Amino acid sequence: MAESSRKALVVLSGGQDSTTCLYWAIDRFGRDKVTTVTFDYGQRHRIELECARNVAAQAGVGNACVPIDTFSSLGGDALTDPDIAVEDHESEGLPSTFVPGRNIIFLTFAAAYAYRREIDHLVTGVAQTDYSGYPDCREATMAALQETLRLGMERDFEIHAPLMHLSKKQTVELARDLGALDAMALTQTCYNGQRPPCGSCPACRLRAKGFAEAGVEDPLLQVT
Amino acid sequence: MAESSRKALVVLSGGQDSTTCLYWAIDRFGRDKVTTVTFDYGQRHRIELECARNVAAQAGVGNACVPIDTFSSLGGDALTDPDIAVEDHESEGLPSTFVPGRNIIFLTFAAAYAYRREIDHLVTGVAQTDYSGYPDCREATMAALQETLRLGMERDFEIHAPLMHLSKKQTVELARDLGALDAMALTQTCYNGQRPPCGSCPACRLRAKGFAEAGVEDPLLQVT
Repeated sequence: MAESSRKALVVLSGGQDSTTCLYWAIDRFGRDKVTTVTFDYGQRHRIELECARNVAAQAGVGNACVPIDTFSSLGGDALTDPDIAVEDHESEGLPSTFVPGRNIIFLTFAAAYAYRREIDHLVTGVAQTDYSGYPDCREATMAALQETLRLGMERDFEIHAPLMHLSKKQTVELARDLGALDAMALTQTCYNGQRPPCGSCPACRLRAKGFAEAGVEDPLLQVT
Repeated sequence: MAESSRKALVVLSGGQDSTTCLYWAIDRFGRDKVTTVTFDYGQRHRIELECARNVAAQAGVGNACVPIDTFSSLGGDALTDPDIAVEDHESEGLPSTFVPGRNIIFLTFAAAYAYRREIDHLVTGVAQTDYSGYPDCREATMAALQETLRLGMERDFEIHAPLMHLSKKQTVELARDLGALDAMALTQTCYNGQRPPCGSCPACRLRAKGFAEAGVEDPLLQVT
């Protein structure tokens, strides 16, 4: 089957990375072959769901919001448990924002969604460069998961992680080259959920570093 | 670390197979090292949740009920979508009761639950004997998933599927040998959710066949 006739599903969080991946998928598969899914998993900042919807609308593709109430009932991480603070410094072990199995769950549910819709290509913004303690973002995890999904659903799913080996600088350059900068103004990265972003949390600092190194102004910072 | 000092989490559905696995885990790890998790995933018969609770109580172990609202929002299968009938005969392709990714999701959430509690052993009742079109029950899927969970959570999880290569007859014999027959009276197998069971759905027929071949009376049928 020609690649142009095949469909792709992008896991869209409303952040910088998955937005870049959406434009990558549109470039690769064609706008009419791409759709997106966003998980409402009890994240601290529900504004992310709105950002994802806005990004998809800007890109001219569909967006399904699918609930996952399980993580918040398991608790114990800073992203879904309001009683746990996001650390703003490096510490031993996995970060407090690590939600065990999050990307495995996201991609498995994405595959279940894709299964019913004859979609074979799953696109995720995970990256092991700038890897900050999230083992579920590694290429080896994604390879094992792809095998698990293929065997477990008898479908030739392909997981694409176009940012896997890119630095944040390279991700910004890719977004610029794909014409994704307008959509960047609609994204949400800040762990504190602020717009304009707080600028001091780990996520804001990583984002700012990438834009600075690429020599690109972050459109989000122009939002008033 | 001695096996006796390690903890196990059993994915308990309230059915015959996972109940047998619970008794297997108690035999192997010791009652005080075993706990159970049951997923409330929008299954057709909520009586299963009560069965799981009763089985765990009978066995003297804990039982956590964890919600998963996602499958019913994805829809399209006979177990979570009340508009789709359970087929009572063989047909082409995967059965209408196939929920894509169900066991992958269950074990990944079980691992996330276990992660916080220093539990390394995950026990599931999946079996590829009597395999009726559920590719997520196969040994190869479980092996790939174990690798995915180890990589994705950086924890040496071990997935145990003690029934993987047993026939239903052998599963009944194992339950008998492990002293699990009393608990069998508390289980729920029927796809139509009936107690006493309907006797005619595929799940009831498979269960009856196993007990008959093992020459054991099904305690569930003694329930009035």
